[in-house]
Amino acid sequence: MELYLIRHGIAQEATSEIRDEDRRLTEQGRKKTQKVARRLKDLGLSFDLIATSPLVRAQQTAEILISTELSSQLEQCSYLAPNGNIEDWVEKWLIPKQYSKTACVALIGHQPCLSNWAEILIWGEAKDSLVLKKAGTIGIETPETLPIFGRCQMFWLTPPRYLI
Amino acid sequence: MELYLIRHGIAQEATSEIRDEDRRLTEQGRKKTQKVARRLKDLGLSFDLIATSPLVRAQQTAEILISTELSSQLEQCSYLAPNGNIEDWVEKWLIPKQYSKTACVALIGHQPCLSNWAEILIWGEAKDSLVLKKAGTIGIETPETLPIFGRCQMFWLTPPRYLI
Repeated sequence: MELYLIRHGIAQEATSEIRDEDRRLTEQGRKKTQKVARRLKDLGLSFDLIATSPLVRAQQTAEILISTELSSQLEQCSYLAPNGNIEDWVEKWLIPKQYSKTACVALIGHQPCLSNWAEILIWGEAKDSLVLKKAGTIGIETPETLPIFGRCQMFWLTPPRYLI
Repeated sequence: MELYLIRHGIAQEATSEIRDEDRRLTEQGRKKTQKVARRLKDLGLSFDLIATSPLVRAQQTAEILISTELSSQLEQCSYLAPNGNIEDWVEKWLIPKQYSKTACVALIGHQPCLSNWAEILIWGEAKDSLVLKKAGTIGIETPETLPIFGRCQMFWLTPPRYLI
C-alpha cells in the first residue's frame, strides 16, 4: 500500500499563552496548505483515509485536505502526535485495519517524527537524513508482507516549493 | 553543496543492432525531458555544472538541460556510466574540484547507480530503497566536512509525473 506522510502547514509560534497543542495554522500556512492540497488533487491523488495527529495545526491541515476532496474519511490517530511510537502504530493501528495492497493512506503529523518514521520504514533506523518542510510530503510504498520496517521504498519527497 | 541526481529520459530499447551505450532518447523521452527541464528552470534551479554519463541517452538528457539554460557548463564524467564507482568519483572527481558550500551540480546518469549513490551518500549503504523514474530527480545536500558518505541529507525525490 501507499503511505503519504504529510507535515502540517506553517503554524503560530508557541507562547506563554498558546500551548503547543493549540497552535493554529497562520493565514500564510492555511493558504500554502490549500495550494498544496489543490496540487495533490490535480495530480490525481486520492486517499482511502486521512489520519491526523490530534494537535490543532495537524487537524487543520487534515481538514484542508478533506475540504479539497482528497478523501472522505478523516480519523484522529494519537500515534501521530509528537513522539508517537511507530512500532505501536504498526501493531495496534495499521495491521488491524487490514488494508488492501492498493490502499492509499495519508498521515498528517509533525517533525522530526514523520521523517524518522519514514527512515525506519525505509531503512530500519532514523538518522535525521530526510528534510521534510512544512506542508511537505513523503511517499512510501510498503512491502506486501510483514515486517515492514526497513523494507519500504520511497518514491516521493517534496517540499511545497517544488510542488506548487 | 547541493547535488541533483537526474536519471536520463525514456530511451530506445537495446537490440542486436543498437548497443546499450548508443541507445537514444525516444521522441516521447525527449519531450518529457524537455518538460522536466523547463519546470526545473521555472522553479529557479541553476547548476554550476552538469556532469553526464558518456552514454548517448544521458548525454542527450544533459544537452536538453543545457539548452534550457539550466547551466552553461557541461562535462562528461566516466564515473557516471553504469556501474561507476562512487568512492572513485568522490576522491578523484568531486574533492579535487573544491566546490564552495553554495555550489549546485547536476549529475545525469542511470539506474540503479544513481539511487544507489544517493543511498550511500545519505545512509552509507545501498538497499534499493529509492524509486527513481526516468527523468526523475533526487536532491541531496552534502555536509560541510568530509567524509560525505552516510552524512548527506535528502531534500527532494520526484518522478516526472509529480513535477510537470
